[in-house]
Amino acid sequence: MKKLFIPALFLLSSLPALADEGQWQPHQLLQLKAELKKVGITIPAEKLADLSKHPMSAIVSTGGCSASFVSPEGLIVTNHHCAYDAIQRNSSAKKNYIVDGFLAKTRAEELPAGASTRVYITDKVDNVSKELGLGLSAAMTGRERREQIQSNIKKIIAECEQDKAYRCSVPSFHRGLEYYRIRQMMIRDVRLVYAPADMIGNYGGDIDNFEWPRHTGDFSFLRAYVGKDGRPAEPSPDNVPYQSKDFLVVSAEGLKNGDPILLAGYPGRTSRYKLPAEIRFARDTDYPLRAAEMLADIATIAAATQAKPEDEVRYASVVKGINNRLKKTQGLIAGFARKDIAAIKDQTDAQFRLWLAGKDAQKAPDLLKQLDTVIAQDMALSQEEFAFSVASNSDLLSSARTLYRLAIEKEKPNAERESGYQERDVGFIKARLSRLEQSFVSAVDQARLTAGLARYAKLTVHPAALDVLLPNPATVAAMFGKTQLHNTAQRLAWMEQNRAAFTQTDDAFIQLAVQLHEVGMSLENRRKEIDGNLDFIIPQYMEAMIAWKKSQGKPVYPDANSTLRVTFGNVGAYAPRDGVTKGPFTTVEGIVEKHTGNEPFIAPAPLLQAIKEKRYGVFKDKVLATVPVDFLSSADTTGGNSGSAVMNKRGELVGLNFDSTYESITKDWYFDTAITRAIHVDIRYMLWVMKEVDHADNVLKELTIKYPK
Amino acid sequence: MKKLFIPALFLLSSLPALADEGQWQPHQLLQLKAELKKVGITIPAEKLADLSKHPMSAIVSTGGCSASFVSPEGLIVTNHHCAYDAIQRNSSAKKNYIVDGFLAKTRAEELPAGASTRVYITDKVDNVSKELGLGLSAAMTGRERREQIQSNIKKIIAECEQDKAYRCSVPSFHRGLEYYRIRQMMIRDVRLVYAPADMIGNYGGDIDNFEWPRHTGDFSFLRAYVGKDGRPAEPSPDNVPYQSKDFLVVSAEGLKNGDPILLAGYPGRTSRYKLPAEIRFARDTDYPLRAAEMLADIATIAAATQAKPEDEVRYASVVKGINNRLKKTQGLIAGFARKDIAAIKDQTDAQFRLWLAGKDAQKAPDLLKQLDTVIAQDMALSQEEFAFSVASNSDLLSSARTLYRLAIEKEKPNAERESGYQERDVGFIKARLSRLEQSFVSAVDQARLTAGLARYAKLTVHPAALDVLLPNPATVAAMFGKTQLHNTAQRLAWMEQNRAAFTQTDDAFIQLAVQLHEVGMSLENRRKEIDGNLDFIIPQYMEAMIAWKKSQGKPVYPDANSTLRVTFGNVGAYAPRDGVTKGPFTTVEGIVEKHTGNEPFIAPAPLLQAIKEKRYGVFKDKVLATVPVDFLSSADTTGGNSGSAVMNKRGELVGLNFDSTYESITKDWYFDTAITRAIHVDIRYMLWVMKEVDHADNVLKELTIKYPK
Repeated sequence: MKKLFIPALFLLSSLPALADEGQWQPHQLLQLKAELKKVGITIPAEKLADLSKHPMSAIVSTGGCSASFVSPEGLIVTNHHCAYDAIQRNSSAKKNYIVDGFLAKTRAEELPAGASTRVYITDKVDNVSKELGLGLSAAMTGRERREQIQSNIKKIIAECEQDKAYRCSVPSFHRGLEYYRIRQMMIRDVRLVYAPADMIGNYGGDIDNFEWPRHTGDFSFLRAYVGKDGRPAEPSPDNVPYQSKDFLVVSAEGLKNGDPILLAGYPGRTSRYKLPAEIRFARDTDYPLRAAEMLADIATIAAATQAKPEDEVRYASVVKGINNRLKKTQGLIAGFARKDIAAIKDQTDAQFRLWLAGKDAQKAPDLLKQLDTVIAQDMALSQEEFAFSVASNSDLLSSARTLYRLAIEKEKPNAERESGYQERDVGFIKARLSRLEQSFVSAVDQARLTAGLARYAKLTVHPAALDVLLPNPATVAAMFGKTQLHNTAQRLAWMEQNRAAFTQTDDAFIQLAVQLHEVGMSLENRRKEIDGNLDFIIPQYMEAMIAWKKSQGKPVYPDANSTLRVTFGNVGAYAPRDGVTKGPFTTVEGIVEKHTGNEPFIAPAPLLQAIKEKRYGVFKDKVLATVPVDFLSSADTTGGNSGSAVMNKRGELVGLNFDSTYESITKDWYFDTAITRAIHVDIRYMLWVMKEVDHADNVLKELTIKYPK
Repeated sequence: MKKLFIPALFLLSSLPALADEGQWQPHQLLQLKAELKKVGITIPAEKLADLSKHPMSAIVSTGGCSASFVSPEGLIVTNHHCAYDAIQRNSSAKKNYIVDGFLAKTRAEELPAGASTRVYITDKVDNVSKELGLGLSAAMTGRERREQIQSNIKKIIAECEQDKAYRCSVPSFHRGLEYYRIRQMMIRDVRLVYAPADMIGNYGGDIDNFEWPRHTGDFSFLRAYVGKDGRPAEPSPDNVPYQSKDFLVVSAEGLKNGDPILLAGYPGRTSRYKLPAEIRFARDTDYPLRAAEMLADIATIAAATQAKPEDEVRYASVVKGINNRLKKTQGLIAGFARKDIAAIKDQTDAQFRLWLAGKDAQKAPDLLKQLDTVIAQDMALSQEEFAFSVASNSDLLSSARTLYRLAIEKEKPNAERESGYQERDVGFIKARLSRLEQSFVSAVDQARLTAGLARYAKLTVHPAALDVLLPNPATVAAMFGKTQLHNTAQRLAWMEQNRAAFTQTDDAFIQLAVQLHEVGMSLENRRKEIDGNLDFIIPQYMEAMIAWKKSQGKPVYPDANSTLRVTFGNVGAYAPRDGVTKGPFTTVEGIVEKHTGNEPFIAPAPLLQAIKEKRYGVFKDKVLATVPVDFLSSADTTGGNSGSAVMNKRGELVGLNFDSTYESITKDWYFDTAITRAIHVDIRYMLWVMKEVDHADNVLKELTIKYPK
């Protein structure tokens, strides 16, 4: 009979704030030296803030996911789900790399990842705020302001992209208070090096998505290739591996509970500074509508692909995407129900308004009134935009609308074209229009459009003038007989046509796109007017907000906007409810526990065998006495952080971020320190799978691994 | 940003055996000195083994539940659900003590707990094995042996009960290897002193039953009264509080994670020494049949009481009882599915048989063959018995059968009557027949009998000759018009009738009871034959089993049989699955978390207010920084242990046992050390409710409480 030595297990519920809020711009870390030290990070803030220095110089984006260099030869590690497109496009019934995994034993065996997989290396970030936002005249209309900002941005980008090796962008920070020009080297030749089998990389599938306990080995390896001159080049067999300036050393020592972690990547979007009214709109109107829409769309696809396994496979990743957004939306709804975030924000908002009134009794009421008015307009318009999207739920229609818009924009000089339709964008449009063939079936698209039109009819808010332009659901079937857009070559050929060709064709979907164009433009112009007004009001609001926080000694990080950010925290468990503790680690034994032999819980036999034989070797954790699989930390992450490097206090790679717990979903709106946890795959599990299951010896050899003493 | 200090939280899954198997007879503790010391119990084994000494002298039974004296004036503490009958019988629409709770501010206000609430104080335990079991001739038939044993037991009991203050029993231990005569003082005047409101005492209701996290304040206080001479007496206003020789001191210091605990009470029944074939029968046949039967019966009652709130209330505790057994049965089925206990037992069984063959090559095969044969007969007969119970699912029919049997038995001299129908049993029969009026409605009983007959028709195993004797379901309604048994006075009047009155009456239910009597006797006699054979074989098997265990240095505790047992262990959490830890404590904050305002999660307003104001006082745990509600330990418990005193290493009361976790349910068959946890209410919560919510100052004053320094 043994005594229990778990002395402080039940501490959790009573501890104050554990998790670590903040998706910091690297340069902000200079203000956070004390916090970094407290958490236990030993890399100097000065080094972390410098994008040209290790480790930030090793952190890259794949345009939607985060990743990092792990060898001087351009080897990149990211999530399995981030490399999924690359794995899928190389798979066939005969060689199914999704099911079997893929390993290139030599460079020559590495497979092209496809046009949609690119690697972006951020190399320069410059503050360009004074040319934008608050720098503009207050007298403009919203739309004038918006167009002026867009025009200025396009100019800055065009100048920045004169060197064709780079992709530039000018995102706004603090909702328009600041703008930074981001210059990224864009590598277009990316190849698949190694991916474990789906039953490792996606173990637990959609059932475990957003859940803990988790046992997913969500990792893959890619390699960046460049021309012989070392500069980005079109994919070519002549290209050579990119010589990465820096790369992350891998620590096979891993982490233990409570250890500090550092996480760097490209978080997509958060809404931490929204007003209470916006939260209530999302909670009571927007999210419920969107959740219902996604549920209905999934049901339509399921019905249309039933008993047609090939069609089902074509829509698998579409459904996966919708399911992922649906679960997130449902999690938001559940989270809002669990905790009254709007009420919490009410308090902060009231305190802020009080402070502001005290600071500037003259200007404050007017600013706040304007703010509330524009926010109300913004929410009202978004309902119309949503309705439009429900009514046009068809990939053919979307393609047709993109093509027609491109033809119109091409009539203007490049610099004046709408952003997204400039010469620099044409390659992306082409890639998107091409890729459609992988996930399109006419009958399914027809079912989705028909069902969407029926749902649109039931919505209470409709955009003006749209109803009469929409096809009668009864005529939709006939339209699919009168189009060639489902043919990829024909679809791409329209990229070269002029406006007249569109207005004169008898292609039913091109006709519909032409027909809907004016309503679409009207929505877009109203959006510009409102956004332009927001561009004027919100920066003033955020400026005051930052001053208020500064008066309390608190630095302010901007909402996520797909730019490089750093967050830090600790490995840690959490209490989803009184009397229950989750995490911080799962172990390989949990894989066996979940294995049912039915999708998505089919672990590969060699993996089960290795666990049965306890072939843990150097990857065995001393405390757990087995190999850890996934772990939780208090890092502040969101969508886009998938694949982010999780580093120890010395900046060595110890895991990859890939998800958050269900209870954390509302963190996009409010960071609840007690329950917010990000989910990471442990580097020891990755290395163990590579060694014991997949025998990826060449990849292991290429990594620089620090083994425990 | 705070660091986490939960260093060993994830240790659980990797630790060896934590929980502490063994429901020990007190005298066995003398063999367990080393184990007691290891766990941290400081009371000497010699003291614990002595029923006349503290603390065992304070431990009592209420006949179905466990309890303990907590003052020198006969004050007893047990579970709320154990005192439920006593609370219910004193409640009315006007004074609903279930809803409002009850507190007697003076002795005079204490309420009679009713005839079914008694207090049993075990005072003498003597080994009488040599007159029974293996002491009998091997030449007898099973039935002869069974009847001889019963007859010997009746003689021992009669002799023992010559002093009317005592109730005696001769339970078998190790399935007939040993018999002990247990003498208990039986106190018949018990009164209700204090019970919290149902929404404290049964917070979480059936939803939380068998679940963790738990927030139930499952406690109540009773008082034992005796005649002025200090001896048990019929309930009377002249009685005086029983002067309890010993009582438990209460420690308001409570426990922390890992602390040793000692638990004493009256566990009902376990099946730890069953054969693999018996486990498979229970798993594959018996439990699934019983679960289906209970589900169907609950559905029948629900349909018959729908929209009739008064009828629903009458059957509330019947349904509660069935639900409780159902959840336990479902838990057993789920547990058997989760872990192949039969396969584990196969291994032990094979090892044992090998050892036995080596020990006694001549006798072993014959013994094992006989064993397997009788066990097979036992399982087959139990299916017929089950079918009979399905066909006779009516309280009126059960009453009629009991009454007819009583009339027949009364024809014999008292000593020769079947056990259960002797003079000593008549009071209990009367109490049972009287109590029926609280939970009986003719229309509901009719629905249950009709539905039961329909289900019986579908069973594959029927007792011989029964089918033709059963009423046609279509005639059941008419039978309820031709009976007076629903009238309590009439029902009790039949206790005085002779056999002829039964055979001549036109009461439809008496007629049916007479009609079914022979089939019932035939089943009973076959049961005696098989049990008598088991009484011969099993003791030999257990004797060999004990010798085998002894050869490995392991003492053997007998299966639970409602006699006084001691178990010990530690406060501790458990991991229901990889990556999740449950317990060991819940806190008052969890009550608020669960409170929805809908049954069964309506916490009383004063309780919520006290939590809101954090009026924790001396009951605040230093580590949790709040008041703990329930906690888990590794003690070995089962049904009957409800209300058992949970004591600290010094034998001071720190909680009451009231349940086990869902994952623990299979412990009745196999004690899985990793996941088995008992659920206790923390003494600090009890005292806090008494002080802050119910203001039970007089009860608090009567207790001897050691407050933390």
